[in-house]
Amino acid sequence: MSEILKNHIRKFVNLSEEEFAAVLSFFRTAEVAKKENLLTEGQICGSNYFVLKGCLRKFFINDKGIEQTTEFAIENWWITDHISFEHQTKSEFYIQAVEPSIILMIDRDSQERLLELHPKMERYFRFIYQRAYAAAQMRIKYLFDLSKEESYHAFYSKYPEFVQRIPQYLLASFLGFTPEYLSELRKKKRS
Amino acid sequence: MSEILKNHIRKFVNLSEEEFAAVLSFFRTAEVAKKENLLTEGQICGSNYFVLKGCLRKFFINDKGIEQTTEFAIENWWITDHISFEHQTKSEFYIQAVEPSIILMIDRDSQERLLELHPKMERYFRFIYQRAYAAAQMRIKYLFDLSKEESYHAFYSKYPEFVQRIPQYLLASFLGFTPEYLSELRKKKRS
Repeated sequence: MSEILKNHIRKFVNLSEEEFAAVLSFFRTAEVAKKENLLTEGQICGSNYFVLKGCLRKFFINDKGIEQTTEFAIENWWITDHISFEHQTKSEFYIQAVEPSIILMIDRDSQERLLELHPKMERYFRFIYQRAYAAAQMRIKYLFDLSKEESYHAFYSKYPEFVQRIPQYLLASFLGFTPEYLSELRKKKRS
Repeated sequence: MSEILKNHIRKFVNLSEEEFAAVLSFFRTAEVAKKENLLTEGQICGSNYFVLKGCLRKFFINDKGIEQTTEFAIENWWITDHISFEHQTKSEFYIQAVEPSIILMIDRDSQERLLELHPKMERYFRFIYQRAYAAAQMRIKYLFDLSKEESYHAFYSKYPEFVQRIPQYLLASFLGFTPEYLSELRKKKRS
């Protein structure tokens, strides 16, 4: 199953079998049950997570007690609270499994040693963060630019399979809707 | 003036004088007049910009013809349209000087060669993107979580000097306000 990470790394850097075995030794595999929390608000985020199978999400709980989803991670995606992970400060977020998931996790000290010992991984993570940052910038543009209805259609046309895969109340939360409003939009789309 | 970049790189990686001279040879310096555009919507974003002096901003023009600012860059900050820069696709953004500015610029091919020849710079850019991504994630959280008034106070308490420095209509645009609403908030804060 760790082949998934190997193939992902090899999209960006050349890595021999021996090098990958060494890289992999910094990670541990974990199975996460649906709705299990990997991180809870107030904790220090100890790990960076790579999804081998399943789906995780990051959310915070707002003043009204409502869960606001800010990010999803499916196969081949990384997820963590970067501020808490890098600075070892208390997190404002939760990270939770949306589906039963299998993940690779690496703690901060291990990630630092990995990068020191395997500089090729600097290049890999540089690409990962560069693309994640670019995606976050587009998300910010959409949050300003698109109406609620437009943002649903944009997300649907970009990630049709993902829209089918995740529970609709979570999609609504990610897009900043109520589940009722999303349900109306879906009816409209079908008709 | 290029010392500013040297010192910034040295916050993250060790770099000798000789290495820095080699790194610097990939960049060119440019002076930008106030309100001059470095990038216009529809162009391919050719360069990544590092601010030595002054202030740049990134914005797009929405359906109503209004400029929506999504990002600022002052001294020691990088700015580009990462999607357009990486994939050489047409940009949806403008990058413009808010103040008369002095910048270092590097085009995409040069940046790739720089990273190939100076792997230490992979580590530098990995940090740059990791932190930029973390900041973008917090911005997304604030866009969902804070009222307009709260977001003004949060920004003011985090960047008081910057709030004093930039034109208020641009700050309003960045926070998603009208200039009139920002003016009201400022009066309230003073009273």
